[in-house]
Amino acid sequence: MTTEFEKIAGGVCAPQGFRAAGITCGIKKPDSPKKDLALIVSDFPAVGAGVFTENEVKAAPVRLSASYLKQCDPRAIVANSGNANACTGALGMEHARCMADSAAKALGLKRREVLVCSTGIIGLPMPMERIEPRMPDLVGALGSDEVAGAAAAEAIMTSDTRPKSYAIKFMLGGKEVRIGAIAKGAGMINPNMATMLCFITTDARITKAELQEATQEAVDRSFNRITIDGDMSTNDTVLVLANGQAGNRLITKDGPGCRVFRAALTKVMKKLAKKIVGDGERVTKLVEVVVHGAQTDADAEKVARAVANSKLVKCSWNGNDPNWGRVLHAVGYSGAKIREEMVDIYFGGLCAAKNGLATDTPLLELLKVMERRKIKVCIDLNLGPGQYNIFTSDLSPEYVVFNRAEYSLPAAKAAKAAQEGDGAGEEV
Amino acid sequence: MTTEFEKIAGGVCAPQGFRAAGITCGIKKPDSPKKDLALIVSDFPAVGAGVFTENEVKAAPVRLSASYLKQCDPRAIVANSGNANACTGALGMEHARCMADSAAKALGLKRREVLVCSTGIIGLPMPMERIEPRMPDLVGALGSDEVAGAAAAEAIMTSDTRPKSYAIKFMLGGKEVRIGAIAKGAGMINPNMATMLCFITTDARITKAELQEATQEAVDRSFNRITIDGDMSTNDTVLVLANGQAGNRLITKDGPGCRVFRAALTKVMKKLAKKIVGDGERVTKLVEVVVHGAQTDADAEKVARAVANSKLVKCSWNGNDPNWGRVLHAVGYSGAKIREEMVDIYFGGLCAAKNGLATDTPLLELLKVMERRKIKVCIDLNLGPGQYNIFTSDLSPEYVVFNRAEYSLPAAKAAKAAQEGDGAGEEV
Repeated sequence: MTTEFEKIAGGVCAPQGFRAAGITCGIKKPDSPKKDLALIVSDFPAVGAGVFTENEVKAAPVRLSASYLKQCDPRAIVANSGNANACTGALGMEHARCMADSAAKALGLKRREVLVCSTGIIGLPMPMERIEPRMPDLVGALGSDEVAGAAAAEAIMTSDTRPKSYAIKFMLGGKEVRIGAIAKGAGMINPNMATMLCFITTDARITKAELQEATQEAVDRSFNRITIDGDMSTNDTVLVLANGQAGNRLITKDGPGCRVFRAALTKVMKKLAKKIVGDGERVTKLVEVVVHGAQTDADAEKVARAVANSKLVKCSWNGNDPNWGRVLHAVGYSGAKIREEMVDIYFGGLCAAKNGLATDTPLLELLKVMERRKIKVCIDLNLGPGQYNIFTSDLSPEYVVFNRAEYSLPAAKAAKAAQEGDGAGEEV
Repeated sequence: MTTEFEKIAGGVCAPQGFRAAGITCGIKKPDSPKKDLALIVSDFPAVGAGVFTENEVKAAPVRLSASYLKQCDPRAIVANSGNANACTGALGMEHARCMADSAAKALGLKRREVLVCSTGIIGLPMPMERIEPRMPDLVGALGSDEVAGAAAAEAIMTSDTRPKSYAIKFMLGGKEVRIGAIAKGAGMINPNMATMLCFITTDARITKAELQEATQEAVDRSFNRITIDGDMSTNDTVLVLANGQAGNRLITKDGPGCRVFRAALTKVMKKLAKKIVGDGERVTKLVEVVVHGAQTDADAEKVARAVANSKLVKCSWNGNDPNWGRVLHAVGYSGAKIREEMVDIYFGGLCAAKNGLATDTPLLELLKVMERRKIKVCIDLNLGPGQYNIFTSDLSPEYVVFNRAEYSLPAAKAAKAAQEGDGAGEEV
């Protein structure tokens, strides 16, 4: 029996007993109309789970939220965009604590019941004077409808071109269970998490331990299988709150409903992971790299990541170039056991190389496949049962232009212009 | 006592007893005036050493030359540009053998005394009909002067914008010893060798075993410390021929002159390695990443490579952006042991971050440093004695444009145009 997962509206507000809000505080820019502070609250006690960046450099809110999750069952998530509160030292930790504190106070919760996330520019102190006083407004804006969920999704965007949310419902032992989610991505999407935030709400009844295991499994199958530039952020966070309002029988590890719930959670994360890659900074193609026939799954993963992160391979995709030679290159240096004369490479189902050699598939047909926005690149090593797949993107000139000076440079240029123009000092 | 290494003219022809040539065969394009076939010959018996790509996918000439080097003392190197003879299967191996054979015949040498190298487009058969008949012309063009050395340097260029050669002389036990070299690089320059060929001649008297060790050591300190795009070529090769004509006392491992010779060989390779990075495809900056204070040298290398290969870091350099946050990011995911609050980052000697936090170094001063063509980025982990340095480049939009369709696409577009224009079939 397969369970039907039905897509529904509402994002993080779709599950019962959750409210959300997104408001404009001027964190991105003092007078920008863009939303930059989000709140998600469970109106009932909940259990929580989290998966955080593996980067050794962790932003203050990451350290804080991981610590709170260990000490306490969470009830809410407060998150801002525009400033990552990363590389900010002891002051950053103080600011993260202050964000949790002030949100908890406005909500009437304990400090550790509120988890904190930040995303945006790094190395600058948080403008707490623009955040803290607005907490009552943020709580006042809470709603349980689609509009409220959408406002929260919008408030966590950075260089994303569109808000990302998704929700499904499904039956579990006669009860309807819902899972809702919002996410932000764009740049620095990489193996083992990304500059990526994903907040998930569910009304499932589930133990804390099983929720953590299910979350880790779903992350491994979704967010850990996307890569845009191979860099790993200091702020990556996936948080899940489960408040039990669906009234289903308690989900425990290996108990009834466990597999269905894990499948549902994985489906939601996969959907958002693909949205994130498709909306990567200046990305023109969504490419799935599928590796078969490796000696082990670990070898298949090495091959998939080497191909997906190769600058030269990604450049060729940007040019619609069915360049199997560059793919074979990357296969060769992946570190996996391979035999060149066994490797087959397919673009969109068409065999471009067989046994490590060019096929007679007409180049024009390969070209047609490469011109699509979604491409599947399959690599068969023909050595064993190992397999892996990963979603990635091309590398465009616009990506480089966008990323070469997104952050500090505009400020510096302005300062330079000011100095050259009127000698107004060198402080920036 | 330090030995003086004096730069001299002549490239591979600078050492005594070597001749070289470069001619146009139409390998790059049938009617291109560009040189594409090179020859280097020792007029006396020589010993040889080689270091080859670690990519599992190895071009036919790489396999062949490695095998010949084991069986025989080499006397000559024949090399072509325009076709890499990679991913070409059994036919490719036949072609590589044929190149060695025909060159040996024209030179009056044994087949295995001639080493073979190829660089250029991959996956296409070598146009042997344009190469083999020209071997007598190539031998006829051999000369021992600067012009001949320059012709050989030119004939191995692919997307290089300028030929690369270098030569030095130095005294060893009262005898003058010379080392000359040519190299080609440009794209796909990476850790553990690059799409890079380097041919070195020397008139030193040295044992085969010591020449191989000296070559490996020099490669580790030079070509293995440059990276442009992090990809690893199928064709990377460094070959050294030593013919003993300097008449110095035989250099053996740990014997007299051994350290001086190794230092000289390393100096030559370092010089060419820097030329290769500086001439990388659409590179605007030569960046040295220096890591100090790691727990081990291996950790320092991890950090240096993570920073040097980060797409986001390289984009920021392209934009003259003193973005220490992105550098710290890459330090964080390098896999090395680090403590965020201990890390210092310097751009061109100016401290941009101290203890993981922004300093008050004026942004305008940092900007001025980043605008230079040569930049030194120093990272001090403040944890131990480990250190490493690597040369790399920025990542430019022009790099992507150049690499997105360098090879197969022009042919495909021509075919498409032909088909759309006159229905002239889809064969390309």
